[in-house]
Amino acid sequence: MVAGLEKNSLIVVALGGNAFMRKGESFDAQWRNVRIAAETIASLVEQGYRVVVTHGNGPQVGIILEWVQRAGKESSRGITLDVADAMTQGWLGYMLQQAIGNALEERGLERRVVAVVSQSLVSKDDPAWREPTKPIGPFYSKEEAEKLAIEYGWVFKPDPRGGYRRVVPSPKPLSIVEARTVRMLVDNGYVVIAVGGGGIPVVRSNHWIQGVEAVVDKDYASAVLAREIDADVLAILTDVEGAYVDYGRPSQKLIKCMTPHKARELLEKGEFPKGSMGPKVEAGAMFVEHSKNGFSLIAMLERAREALEGLTGTRIMSDCEGQDILFF
Amino acid sequence: MVAGLEKNSLIVVALGGNAFMRKGESFDAQWRNVRIAAETIASLVEQGYRVVVTHGNGPQVGIILEWVQRAGKESSRGITLDVADAMTQGWLGYMLQQAIGNALEERGLERRVVAVVSQSLVSKDDPAWREPTKPIGPFYSKEEAEKLAIEYGWVFKPDPRGGYRRVVPSPKPLSIVEARTVRMLVDNGYVVIAVGGGGIPVVRSNHWIQGVEAVVDKDYASAVLAREIDADVLAILTDVEGAYVDYGRPSQKLIKCMTPHKARELLEKGEFPKGSMGPKVEAGAMFVEHSKNGFSLIAMLERAREALEGLTGTRIMSDCEGQDILFF
Repeated sequence: MVAGLEKNSLIVVALGGNAFMRKGESFDAQWRNVRIAAETIASLVEQGYRVVVTHGNGPQVGIILEWVQRAGKESSRGITLDVADAMTQGWLGYMLQQAIGNALEERGLERRVVAVVSQSLVSKDDPAWREPTKPIGPFYSKEEAEKLAIEYGWVFKPDPRGGYRRVVPSPKPLSIVEARTVRMLVDNGYVVIAVGGGGIPVVRSNHWIQGVEAVVDKDYASAVLAREIDADVLAILTDVEGAYVDYGRPSQKLIKCMTPHKARELLEKGEFPKGSMGPKVEAGAMFVEHSKNGFSLIAMLERAREALEGLTGTRIMSDCEGQDILFF
Repeated sequence: MVAGLEKNSLIVVALGGNAFMRKGESFDAQWRNVRIAAETIASLVEQGYRVVVTHGNGPQVGIILEWVQRAGKESSRGITLDVADAMTQGWLGYMLQQAIGNALEERGLERRVVAVVSQSLVSKDDPAWREPTKPIGPFYSKEEAEKLAIEYGWVFKPDPRGGYRRVVPSPKPLSIVEARTVRMLVDNGYVVIAVGGGGIPVVRSNHWIQGVEAVVDKDYASAVLAREIDADVLAILTDVEGAYVDYGRPSQKLIKCMTPHKARELLEKGEFPKGSMGPKVEAGAMFVEHSKNGFSLIAMLERAREALEGLTGTRIMSDCEGQDILFF
């Protein structure tokens, strides 16, 4: 146990959508992958930690949009992105809820686990609306893309791998509509699965909220949730040991600890790749900047427990033993 | 307010899947329909009732299975029925959670509403496993059906409307895995959306539960949930005024109240059509037989409030003013 991390600390564990389904894998492989994640979660609960699980949904929403595309116009009936997101929250929420429940019961613990539908509030004035950048769904030919652009007002961009893909805005999450519900469930002893796919993006007009055609980054949304439920740790679990400087070069070094200030400096220098480690480091810094005593952790899924003990993984903390960066 | 029905009574409101999407309707129509249901729910909450909402998913699961069929083998990747069910729980859970939340806020009430992923425990020894009867998903040609029967072990039956449809077992729900969670949420002032599509059917082996290829009747599952959370009323809302004797004939009479014993007698006589009113009456009787003071109500969605006041709808109660049946 490290200094400042109590046995019953509240940890938001953010899992990547790729943690469940890697390229070309089947539904069966998904169950295997979900069970690996569930074992990790249950072992944290066994240690006494309180856990909230968030997850990505990239591969799953891709599959749904591919079904809809292949099925053709007649049977798509205008499905919107918020509903597709909601479908993946049911899909992965179910798998995680069942698998975590099983892993808890096998350890002699109560099956107190619940997946809740989650919405992420975004601003209508977010600059992201002016420039959609996030590719989603299947690849289209130029002709198809032009037709759909006219018919639905969708925006397309050529993909480096060939063909065209729809791009949508990725506005910053301001708040998780269900944050208070999540906190109440945690206080009642539940492992809570929330903010699937970054949450379903919604905007507010007076008393109304309403879904929008966008996607929310799951690491940012997890950071917002962690702040709103006053978590002690935001643990972003992935398939690498942590954040590196000089990643992929012989000189690469695994970061043990850095301050949010140092993290932002390295982000600006382009030290962390934009599509992968960048948002994780930024989300980690964001949480620490808005938290009283909390810290962020970027670590490998299978080594989450060791990472919580400080044996691996990258921490983002307001104080790294008086330094602004430490390496392993 | 009728005798025995307190202001803060706990009501399980069961909505049909058709309440949201009627044949051929678009996704947009769904929102309109969900908002109608949400207004009804919010008006019950405003009156002081505590409400749990359950819902069917027939049209929605049909759409998903149709996508998968049309998309072809390559992109279906072996989706199972439990996951398809889970997707509809996310889909309709989201729409209801958002719409009920909006309707509550418009009334100056707190947005305390949450959709939870729900699993229905069924028995491996249920006689339904020996004879699959429930048609699901799209229509297939004889050749396609024969191929899929060999490939996946699916069972097909010719449909009266032409072509073949897959049929699956519909075992009786024994228990809702998340019943205690639902009750805890109700006790914390939440409107809870649960048991979507009758719940995802699961079987148990020791500490493990696991999804199975089946469907659970949503009215039966709602009756089981109502019993397990000790509800006061099971309100099955639909598009007719209630249960009739001589339905569709000039002599038809709307039943005001009947005992569970009378209900079973009329069921055996075939008074209520098997695919529609039959399961509702049976579920209603089941709940009353297992409840101390609770009653069941079958009524029209738009007239739920009047029905709770006894002005319309069919009640199933252990005592109908000393009679075994009363008519309007």
